[in-house]
Amino acid sequence: MGHTANSYRSHTCGELRMEHVGQTVRLAGFLENLREVGSSFAFAVLRDFYGVTQLVIENEETLRMFKDLNKESTLAVEGVVRERDSKNPKLPTGDVEVVPARVEVLGRCRHNELPFQVNRSREADESARLKYRYLDLRNPAVKRNIILRCHVVSALRRAMTEQGFLEITTPILTASSPEGARDYLVPSRKHPGKFYALPQAPQQFKQLLMASGFDKYFQIAPCFRDEDARGDRSPGEFYQLDLEMAFAGQEDVFAVLEQVLPPIFAQYGTYSIASDAPFTRIPYLEAMEKYGSDKPDLRIDLTVADATALLADCGFGPFAGHTVKAVVVSDFSGTRKQIDQLCADVEVQAGEKAYWFRLDEQGELVGGISKFVQEKKDAVIRALGLQPNCFVGLTAGTRLTAQKTAGVLRNKLGNFCPGHMDRERYEFCWIVDFPMYEIGEESGALEFCHNPFSMPNGGLEILKRAAAGAVDPLTITAYQYDLVCNGVELSSGAVRNHDPEIMVEAFQLVGLGEEDVKAKFPAMYNAFTYGAPPHAGIAPGVDRMVMLLSGEDSIREVIPFPMNKNAQDLMMGAPSFVEPKQLDELNIQITAREDG
Amino acid sequence: MGHTANSYRSHTCGELRMEHVGQTVRLAGFLENLREVGSSFAFAVLRDFYGVTQLVIENEETLRMFKDLNKESTLAVEGVVRERDSKNPKLPTGDVEVVPARVEVLGRCRHNELPFQVNRSREADESARLKYRYLDLRNPAVKRNIILRCHVVSALRRAMTEQGFLEITTPILTASSPEGARDYLVPSRKHPGKFYALPQAPQQFKQLLMASGFDKYFQIAPCFRDEDARGDRSPGEFYQLDLEMAFAGQEDVFAVLEQVLPPIFAQYGTYSIASDAPFTRIPYLEAMEKYGSDKPDLRIDLTVADATALLADCGFGPFAGHTVKAVVVSDFSGTRKQIDQLCADVEVQAGEKAYWFRLDEQGELVGGISKFVQEKKDAVIRALGLQPNCFVGLTAGTRLTAQKTAGVLRNKLGNFCPGHMDRERYEFCWIVDFPMYEIGEESGALEFCHNPFSMPNGGLEILKRAAAGAVDPLTITAYQYDLVCNGVELSSGAVRNHDPEIMVEAFQLVGLGEEDVKAKFPAMYNAFTYGAPPHAGIAPGVDRMVMLLSGEDSIREVIPFPMNKNAQDLMMGAPSFVEPKQLDELNIQITAREDG
Repeated sequence: MGHTANSYRSHTCGELRMEHVGQTVRLAGFLENLREVGSSFAFAVLRDFYGVTQLVIENEETLRMFKDLNKESTLAVEGVVRERDSKNPKLPTGDVEVVPARVEVLGRCRHNELPFQVNRSREADESARLKYRYLDLRNPAVKRNIILRCHVVSALRRAMTEQGFLEITTPILTASSPEGARDYLVPSRKHPGKFYALPQAPQQFKQLLMASGFDKYFQIAPCFRDEDARGDRSPGEFYQLDLEMAFAGQEDVFAVLEQVLPPIFAQYGTYSIASDAPFTRIPYLEAMEKYGSDKPDLRIDLTVADATALLADCGFGPFAGHTVKAVVVSDFSGTRKQIDQLCADVEVQAGEKAYWFRLDEQGELVGGISKFVQEKKDAVIRALGLQPNCFVGLTAGTRLTAQKTAGVLRNKLGNFCPGHMDRERYEFCWIVDFPMYEIGEESGALEFCHNPFSMPNGGLEILKRAAAGAVDPLTITAYQYDLVCNGVELSSGAVRNHDPEIMVEAFQLVGLGEEDVKAKFPAMYNAFTYGAPPHAGIAPGVDRMVMLLSGEDSIREVIPFPMNKNAQDLMMGAPSFVEPKQLDELNIQITAREDG
Repeated sequence: MGHTANSYRSHTCGELRMEHVGQTVRLAGFLENLREVGSSFAFAVLRDFYGVTQLVIENEETLRMFKDLNKESTLAVEGVVRERDSKNPKLPTGDVEVVPARVEVLGRCRHNELPFQVNRSREADESARLKYRYLDLRNPAVKRNIILRCHVVSALRRAMTEQGFLEITTPILTASSPEGARDYLVPSRKHPGKFYALPQAPQQFKQLLMASGFDKYFQIAPCFRDEDARGDRSPGEFYQLDLEMAFAGQEDVFAVLEQVLPPIFAQYGTYSIASDAPFTRIPYLEAMEKYGSDKPDLRIDLTVADATALLADCGFGPFAGHTVKAVVVSDFSGTRKQIDQLCADVEVQAGEKAYWFRLDEQGELVGGISKFVQEKKDAVIRALGLQPNCFVGLTAGTRLTAQKTAGVLRNKLGNFCPGHMDRERYEFCWIVDFPMYEIGEESGALEFCHNPFSMPNGGLEILKRAAAGAVDPLTITAYQYDLVCNGVELSSGAVRNHDPEIMVEAFQLVGLGEEDVKAKFPAMYNAFTYGAPPHAGIAPGVDRMVMLLSGEDSIREVIPFPMNKNAQDLMMGAPSFVEPKQLDELNIQITAREDG
């Protein structure tokens, strides 16, 4: 940020060093603290965006003036920079102090008592923090996350531009679309009874841009879903790095993010190492089989093995007739108590029990369900490749249940066992080849698995063969992919189905037709009948990426002015009642009214 | 954009040159045209985002396939690059052609007839263009403006970042605010009867950011005003380069835009020259007196002179008892017919008549109202500094009317008379020292002139002196400024009033008090009581800047997916009716319903 000379200051509060000693400088900032040492001697701390500088007050008159001020008042001071007697090596400006000769009060804080102490605001009640967000944000630890977000977004923009992408802003007042979530609606004044909707994502617009002949589009796009809050989703708006490419396929999209993300993660993240290109590609079915998850944390070196043939009939009740999965951990040193805790944690998270046994130092099977395994000891050791001191975690159930529980177990074991997780890095992977169709749990009939508008692998031909009964539709995969980092799903993306003929065929397999396609996205469907390029894209969540980089668990820590979980902005007082005249103009009336 | 190898193409359609002759390349794009020369010979044009390339079809089979395709279908072709027999020097790829050996249809255009011809879409009916915007945007002349906009926005971001500004995104779902225009409202599902509002501008948030300790903020900010369309404002949303600086005054803001804008205007504009820093500063009263406008076009070298003393009593009826203003044009060569047209144009635009006389080649007063001036000929020549061949345009009325009409006259004369306008440049100026108060036309009482939240020049003291009757409040100016370029107002900005005490004093002068201040902007007022830095900012309109740079007259030409003047998105069908269930969830019902 450097030197910022202007009308109020010659230097920022983070700028002064030994080289400035002897200079007369002007600083401006917030009065963070005043520490009186005597009747005419005190230290004060002046804080601005860039840092803090110590002021030394050495006369009674100046001290009286400072004592008259509430903390957090803004000041301009002019004075000479002096070397400190006792330096503070933790502070960039810790070698020097400024002796104010002139002090001007710029903005008086009228409150003797603040709702919370600025530098300890993270300990305050969240509603107080959100109501007085302007005080909360003065806390450098809070501000730091917002600055991080700004830098990350700026770096994403720069990197996308360098990749030849054009940032195009798409409309915010638009039409309701069936993305799956609830729309925010905006009543139209000029068209009584009609409503705009805020976009759940610019999905249709970006595909229309491709049909419009644009080639490489991106946007840091605001998205709006009227859904209840979750840990990683704020109510109201969120942002995604939305991108789409024409005349492009899956590998083209991968290549872009493999260039763009790792340097940004390594530069701005808590960890300074990120995957090199290309990221590991893992087919969905393999991910479920090997990691028990479609968002595997590849920092963990453990994998899931199938132990069904080995153990389903070992006599342990819960295994009988079920799929059994095993996670083997070498050099295991956990205590019995730790193992119990770990299994309990798995059960809480997965809703299914985990079981275990160990091969001890002497090569004996011990603990957990070892007595059921004893009989097959040699086969088990051979099949699972066990060494002394190996721990074997086990899960059982339907195939999917056993997989998913094993996935949770794998994560817990990786996090718990030293040497099995290389934590301090960002490990990316692509999950590919998602199934296009599934049998609906409720309907029992063929349904789309995820996005009906993704391109099926095999195109028109495979759909026609499926329709003719020559191919099982459940084996058809889609060009749909997830980007995963450290076990967090950053985004789904897809090669889009840009061909009306293939769309209709894909819909016919689940008993729908052209009218259903048209009804879902009329503008896009129409556009595609005028010739569209093959195109593909993805849209990693910005908030989620910044959470990952900052290490914060609450999304509200990475948003400048977040709403609370109840979808209220406590600082601005939103939402609020409005004037009847406003509703009249919009041709609406309210049918219920919240108390108060 | 350069080389863009991917799964569908080895080169773009704008990339091939003589150096590629002999190479086998893959291209993908839209089939723009097919020109048959014989039964087995034809030329086709393939177009993508980057340009067009000529294809030569030399066999019957390939030609049959091409003839089978509707224009605008998308294709991938593979073939050898060949030097053209007759080169086209106007086309970057005009030296070469590609002979397709393999052709793949990627997206079939199903329509034999398009709603309009893509390359002539600007001649089509606007509603057809907006409904089929994806075809309209395929027209390179339409697309060019959107690309320009993207480049300008990207360059603005880069320049602001280089100036040490942090882009911070502020909420879009927020509280209704009294910015003067009508809010778009969003009903809250979780809080029956309450509404969010879309921000008319991030004004409050940016000031709250300053109170939060942020230092240099900017944002390419979406703004929403539910107002009817105007030539330079689309209904719905528009964008501004919103910026604010803490511990900063007017000159700090000026210095930033003086660094940021000229290089971007010179690089991306129709003209390649833009003002150097510092821009001319013109006090509001001087601008009105000298240019008859608070948004003078400084490319015109004409100024307005006061001729009241000289001509008010010359005997010409319309001048009697009025202020008279004169615009003198040297080396004038217009015909009588042209002068009449010019005066008629002034009357249409200003609603007031313009008068004139000339000093001819022989130094005689001729034409217009010359007979009324004859008697004072010498005094007039001296006072107005007239030379032979000078034209004198005149306006009369109240001071403000005479000024404004003279301003219109000055513009018309500058545009009409050779040598008095240096057209091919961007000439910026700052209009400063706007009056803080005025006498309201309707109320007859003291009112705020513009923004009541700007800092008065003289601060608390001058307001107190005005309250005590020692200073005429009409002489108080505000630290408020306009940025003007080529006669277009790009933005208003101000040093904000960050001091609650000064705010209350400023409001008391117009008969309001603290409660009124609080009621207008409660969050901001509260924040300021906790100590705020002095701060200042501005927010040039992005759409307006891009219009100026592109030379377009309609704002819809610089927006990717604009609404029509009736606030409808004809392509997406917004606004639209929604399901009763959606309204139920939002606790509202409609009281009127548009037909159809």
